[in-house]
Amino acid sequence: MDDAGASLQATMLATGRAAREGARALRLSTAAQRTAAILAAADAIRANAEAILAANAADFAAAKAAGLSGPMLDRMMLDAARLDGVADAVTQVAAIPDPLGTEIARWTRPNGLDIARIRTPIGVIAIIYESRPNVTADAAALCIRSGNAAILRGGSECLRTNLALHAAMVQGLVKAGLPASCLQQVRTTDRAAVGEILSGLDHSIDLIIPRGGKSLVARVQADARAPVLGHLEGLNHVFVHEKADIAKARDIVVNAKLRRVSVCGAAETLLIDRAAAERLLPPIADALIRERCELRGDAAARAIEPSMKPASSEDWTTEYLAPILSVALVDGVEGAAAHIAAYGSGHTDAIVTEDEAAAERFIALVDSAIVLVNASTQFADGGEFGFGAEIGIATDKLHARGPVGAEQLTTYKYVVRGTGQTRP
Amino acid sequence: MDDAGASLQATMLATGRAAREGARALRLSTAAQRTAAILAAADAIRANAEAILAANAADFAAAKAAGLSGPMLDRMMLDAARLDGVADAVTQVAAIPDPLGTEIARWTRPNGLDIARIRTPIGVIAIIYESRPNVTADAAALCIRSGNAAILRGGSECLRTNLALHAAMVQGLVKAGLPASCLQQVRTTDRAAVGEILSGLDHSIDLIIPRGGKSLVARVQADARAPVLGHLEGLNHVFVHEKADIAKARDIVVNAKLRRVSVCGAAETLLIDRAAAERLLPPIADALIRERCELRGDAAARAIEPSMKPASSEDWTTEYLAPILSVALVDGVEGAAAHIAAYGSGHTDAIVTEDEAAAERFIALVDSAIVLVNASTQFADGGEFGFGAEIGIATDKLHARGPVGAEQLTTYKYVVRGTGQTRP
Repeated sequence: MDDAGASLQATMLATGRAAREGARALRLSTAAQRTAAILAAADAIRANAEAILAANAADFAAAKAAGLSGPMLDRMMLDAARLDGVADAVTQVAAIPDPLGTEIARWTRPNGLDIARIRTPIGVIAIIYESRPNVTADAAALCIRSGNAAILRGGSECLRTNLALHAAMVQGLVKAGLPASCLQQVRTTDRAAVGEILSGLDHSIDLIIPRGGKSLVARVQADARAPVLGHLEGLNHVFVHEKADIAKARDIVVNAKLRRVSVCGAAETLLIDRAAAERLLPPIADALIRERCELRGDAAARAIEPSMKPASSEDWTTEYLAPILSVALVDGVEGAAAHIAAYGSGHTDAIVTEDEAAAERFIALVDSAIVLVNASTQFADGGEFGFGAEIGIATDKLHARGPVGAEQLTTYKYVVRGTGQTRP
Repeated sequence: MDDAGASLQATMLATGRAAREGARALRLSTAAQRTAAILAAADAIRANAEAILAANAADFAAAKAAGLSGPMLDRMMLDAARLDGVADAVTQVAAIPDPLGTEIARWTRPNGLDIARIRTPIGVIAIIYESRPNVTADAAALCIRSGNAAILRGGSECLRTNLALHAAMVQGLVKAGLPASCLQQVRTTDRAAVGEILSGLDHSIDLIIPRGGKSLVARVQADARAPVLGHLEGLNHVFVHEKADIAKARDIVVNAKLRRVSVCGAAETLLIDRAAAERLLPPIADALIRERCELRGDAAARAIEPSMKPASSEDWTTEYLAPILSVALVDGVEGAAAHIAAYGSGHTDAIVTEDEAAAERFIALVDSAIVLVNASTQFADGGEFGFGAEIGIATDKLHARGPVGAEQLTTYKYVVRGTGQTRP
């Protein structure tokens, strides 16, 4: 390791130790203190709007000069209205019921032992994210709400913005009497910092959450020496069953694909029941084409709608995040479930049907974090679930699946109260 | 890779694929079927007792010839009574409430969406364990109860016993109309098989549970490419607070250390409140010494009880699993919590006190899976918690902490039922 590497490592280890100390303070904080910190942080974002927007303008200019793409520039850009939205989202997190200390279960054993399962913070959570600077404020607020210290590592192109937002969040903490160490923002664009986080910072990190593209998440899952809560891509399907109401099916498919094409809840593949494809496919395809959506079909779908481009095998595993939809004909619920098992990412999948038995069969067969009946996949969102805010949609099977809000950022411990019991 | 390596890899990949198929069948099985399978498996263990005991006798003879230690030989040995116990434990798992399909939560959103959080199987669970052959039956039964397929990899010295027990469990599955593929036993003693499991078998494994010594668990946590539920050592503490009832304290410490010294719930360090050490330590030390427990004290403890050996710094991080106890004086609850944070393994820690405020402070400060007040650490056990059986005590913070029973081997998914809702 060269001098710069050793110095980065020392800095990151110090970050980890500081976060661990912050976690200790948060563990002993009260719900009222955490609420006060989050509200004060939202105030600080508003009070420091000028500085935050100036930092963002500098990031934006540098990114533009570096030739970043239009969509990326749009995602990183803040203006007064968007920053207001960021502050509002933080305010909303203050209103989420505080999860800590909640009794999840409690029972008494025949020997008199009183066993309670109590919600507690996880400890130190590292969040590695790309682009959108609002994640800095959202993640920090959710971590405060759930009593966790955070180590935040945002995209390099947003460093100035993230540091300005972080400074505001820290103002909130300090105003509520909590130590600044609870929120650590990595202050370097050196990519080696990510490697240090993945190493676990000498056991200072309890959980790593990657939010970003497939390659970031894959790297984190492969290299992390600490537990990871994966937020993989949303390779989501809408299956239109032979007993579907055609108007509902059309509206749901159009919304699932096109409401916003860049979110992880967007649909990427349309599965049509072969038994009724002649009836179902044309009106849905027409509605999509009217909205300028490109369709890529398998041979059977193209036999009905010859205007579609042919789908290649890669289309079934591609998260377009664009107005493109792959279309396949499948044999009933079983065929749909088999296609989803083979190509899906376990994120969000929907069936449209008026047949309750078919819906229940689909629910049983499809092992995804969110399974919808007669509703758009775009509802895959913590806010829409009533969680107030989310850090993302988990596609791992352990700990938390689906929208990850404050409650999902907690763990539990058992508190066992006795009167001197010994075990026979 | 040589030919043998390629052949092992192909065999293990086939094992993974078969388990994945078994998981699909279990996902669609009914609770009654799972119960029937477990009961039939217990019957099959009893019906095949002769063959299982013969296999164990062969393992035992080979292990003895290879010079295995007395305690290891004792752990691997089955006789008619122990095998009856194994069958009884399986029968008990059949009586555990079936966790699958349970509604953990359900609510309706203002837009009419009906959201339910439903307990579902994790999928395929690989369990890597050492020595005790009862794990084969326990783990298989818990996996059936929770709807998971299992890949079992036991200690090499028990291969014959494990295969005989596995054959009985599979008989139970088949009798209940479930495919044999639900339970895979690794049939080779080649250590490379563990490496293949850690690789995840081409995404055929959803969770790896290591049960065994520190080095096994550490290797799994370092190398696994699939999520791990860690069962680390139990470096457990009993803190005797200045307001402790001395008789309770003595009985709890003796029980926590000596009831069974080889279990992960055994206490390894005694922390005595400095403020009352002159009064508290001598009667506790006397009781332990009478039971032939070796004490290793820090300087302050030895000033009160000079008969103790001096503790080295390693004693604070050693899981003795033997009649040895390290003893330190600490300054009140804060001092005890600081010692536990520095040296504990997050498993199980107890306070003995009549002061409720001190107990609550200890509960708040100590971040372990199980925190006990006025009870022995030896209660750290799924059976004692009322879970019926356990696969071990998890010391990780995610997904499940403490005793891991059938419920802890499940995950959940969201089922969202709509009437055509699209997202504005």
